[in-house]
Order: sequence, then structure tokens, then C-alpha cells
Amino acid sequence: MKKMPSSLVLFSGGIDSTTALYWARSRFKQVTSLSFAYGQRHKIEIKLARKLTKKLNIPHIILRLDMNQIGGSALTDTQIPVPEIDRIEEIGTDPPATYVPFRNGIFLSMAAAWAEANSIRDLVCGFNIVDSPPYPDTRPAFVSAMIKAINLGTTTSLDKEKFVLHAPFIRMKKSYIIQKGLALNADYSYSISCYAGAEVPCLKCSSCLLRQQAWEEVGQKDPLLVRLEKEGKL
Amino acid sequence: MKKMPSSLVLFSGGIDSTTALYWARSRFKQVTSLSFAYGQRHKIEIKLARKLTKKLNIPHIILRLDMNQIGGSALTDTQIPVPEIDRIEEIGTDPPATYVPFRNGIFLSMAAAWAEANSIRDLVCGFNIVDSPPYPDTRPAFVSAMIKAINLGTTTSLDKEKFVLHAPFIRMKKSYIIQKGLALNADYSYSISCYAGAEVPCLKCSSCLLRQQAWEEVGQKDPLLVRLEKEGKL
Repeated sequence: MKKMPSSLVLFSGGIDSTTALYWARSRFKQVTSLSFAYGQRHKIEIKLARKLTKKLNIPHIILRLDMNQIGGSALTDTQIPVPEIDRIEEIGTDPPATYVPFRNGIFLSMAAAWAEANSIRDLVCGFNIVDSPPYPDTRPAFVSAMIKAINLGTTTSLDKEKFVLHAPFIRMKKSYIIQKGLALNADYSYSISCYAGAEVPCLKCSSCLLRQQAWEEVGQKDPLLVRLEKEGKL
Repeated sequence: MKKMPSSLVLFSGGIDSTTALYWARSRFKQVTSLSFAYGQRHKIEIKLARKLTKKLNIPHIILRLDMNQIGGSALTDTQIPVPEIDRIEEIGTDPPATYVPFRNGIFLSMAAAWAEANSIRDLVCGFNIVDSPPYPDTRPAFVSAMIKAINLGTTTSLDKEKFVLHAPFIRMKKSYIIQKGLALNADYSYSISCYAGAEVPCLKCSSCLLRQQAWEEVGQKDPLLVRLEKEGKL
């Protein structure tokens, strides 16, 4: 397969975007990774994301935006507790307290702006709707509408080459996403998913439980836990 | 006319958004104004915007976001000069150096997020495409696509009440927008448009020239200049 020239990967450091990073590496000659320091409770994800990009020798851009200014989410307001659950079945159909108002809309807008200023037209994200709490801003209909708005509101509306938003895992189960990544030799040992904010996962939030279930389905121990054990952190 | 409950006005302090503020006041019981401190060269616009909102007793939210991180524009990068022109006819059909990559996409995303967290569904902006440099992110097709993306990517996708984006002046000439505002007793003496960054307009940038032409068409002296003269600043 002939590789395409360059892409920008929205890289939070979780399972899905880590896989997206490896996916992009397999398809693009140049890959740039982009993380957001948005005032998240679990900002340690950025530090660990940087470790992986250094290892892979991939440029890592960090854009800062304080979403505490917007509020309304347990992920950016430490006054709102992260819900603890015992079983995955407790995840409801309404967006939970960890929903950050229009976070992915803001992130995609900023990613497109950065990409526009740097002449990159391919955006890659790890959004998915299976094995995930019901966040409205990860769904296919949103993703399609957003890239349309981006192409109408940037100079690509005048150019021939439009922005393309690749969301290759949007309808995939998390365990399948992991298998895709493992086939690309993905290193998940620095990937963290926990909302609580520590490197050692709480194993009580929805994100931890969904990750745990996915690794069980894969039939492998979570490489993050393997590393933490090795480093004596567990 | 029965007033609607509440709205959020994107208020930069220029002619168009000042008129939008008065327009919103005439149609909504509660009006909140929103400015962005985005690292703009002409950040004085925020200070003057605040003066007007204080006078009108309208809450004024300022969201901070450093668009220097994105670059690519004379408005956020002081290394890129603001183009000086002699005549309006020199404004071309390509986006000029003062285009800020996807600025209105980012602003609308953040406005929607803030509105979502504060249960406001009506957004108001002063975007217009006549008498304006060719910025892609002020056009009707972009505005329609963006509000669609916002409604698909926020919790309004589950609610009955959707976001509405009011852009009442989008196809209006600037002199007509001013006349609309004057009919609502709009005070333009604190409204500034100049890109150069001082309270006293440079009268050399496209924004100054378009404003000057609009007031000439209205047949009235620009109230900003009247105030500056009175204060001995001219």
C-alpha cells in the first residue's frame, strides 16, 4: 500500500487514540500527534502520551485550552465527583457526569485550525461508539457533520484539497481495536484510560471497567498493569 | 413581540456584534455576552466591549484561548504584518493575512459548550459576508453546517430543544447593519474595528476602511471618532 503524505492524529493517550497513532503510522509517511491540555483531572495522560511519541519519534504538539472556564463536567471540575460503578451494566444511556460539553467539537476545530496553518489535510481520531459511555460527540453523524463544517469554514472551501477525518474504529468494539493495534505492534504500556487522575488505574470508573473488559476479551493482561507491576507501582 | 427567554451573544465589540447585542436585547429577556481573549493583536476590543456591557448591565463572559499556539495569522502573530491598503478595491477574493484559521469554528464550538453548560440554546452572532474580506468562516453555508454539527455533538442531540444560531445580518451591507443598530439606539462609541491594536483607528487596514465607508454611507460621523475627539485622543 502506498503511503499518503501527512496526517495529524488526535492523541489523548488512551487505548483508542494510541491505536489510531499506529494506524496512521502504517498509512502516512509523516505523522504528527496532537494532545490537548484542557484542564483535565487526568492530565497525567499527556505526560505518558509524550513518552510514547518520543519512543516512536513522532512530533507531539500540545495545545492548551482551559475547559474549566466552561465547566459542567466531572473531568474538568474537581467539585463534581467521577461516578464510581461496580459493573459495566450500570453505564446508562444518558451522557454521564464525565461528559465534557462539546469537547470533541472544540478539539476537532482546534486540530483543523492547526492543520490548516501547517498544510496538513488528513486528521485521524480514535473515536468509537461501542463499549463507550453515550457521549454525543463521538458518533458517526457528528463526525460527518463536523468535517463538513470544517471544510466550509476554512480555506479548503476555496482549495481543491479538502480535509478528511479518518475515524477508522468508530464502529469497532474496544477489544477488536486492541487486536488491530497489537497487529501493528502497538505499545499500550503507557496508555492510560482512568478518569481519576493517577497513573495507577482506580478500577472503579466506567473507563477503567470498559478497558478491563476489553483486555479480558483479548485474553491478555493489560500491558499498563504489567509495566506498573514491573516498576513496583502496583 | 413576545420576547424569548435567553441568549448568548458572540460579542467582539465590533460594529456587527455590537448591533447583534442590541438586536438580542430587543428579542430576548436575558442576554449574556461572550468575548474571546484569543491572543489577538487588538485585545483592546475586549476592554471596550466590557465598557458597553457594563453600561447596558449585560453579563460579560470572557473565555481565554491562546490562538498564538495555532499561528498563521497577522491577527495573532505580531511577526506577520497587518496588510495596509489605500482603497477598499484592493481587498481581493482570497482570504487575507488577517484570516485566523477556523477562528469562528473554534469560537462557535466554545460558545456552544458554554451555552450547553449554562442551559442556553439561542446563540447570536453578527457575522456578515457583505463589506467584509473573504473570510470562509462567516458564510451562510458554514454557519448552517456548524450549527448542525453542534446539535449532533452535544446533549441537544438527545433533547427536544436544539441550539439555534441567529445570524440576522449575514447578508446585510454594513451601513444597513448600522442603521438597524441606530434604530435600536445602539451606542457605537466604544465599538472598535481596527486590526492594528490601538484605540485610535489606523485608517489603513481593511477593517478601518470598510467601517469608514459604512459611516459615510449612513451619512453620520463615526461615534468612535466623536468620542475620541471629545476625550482629546485624536
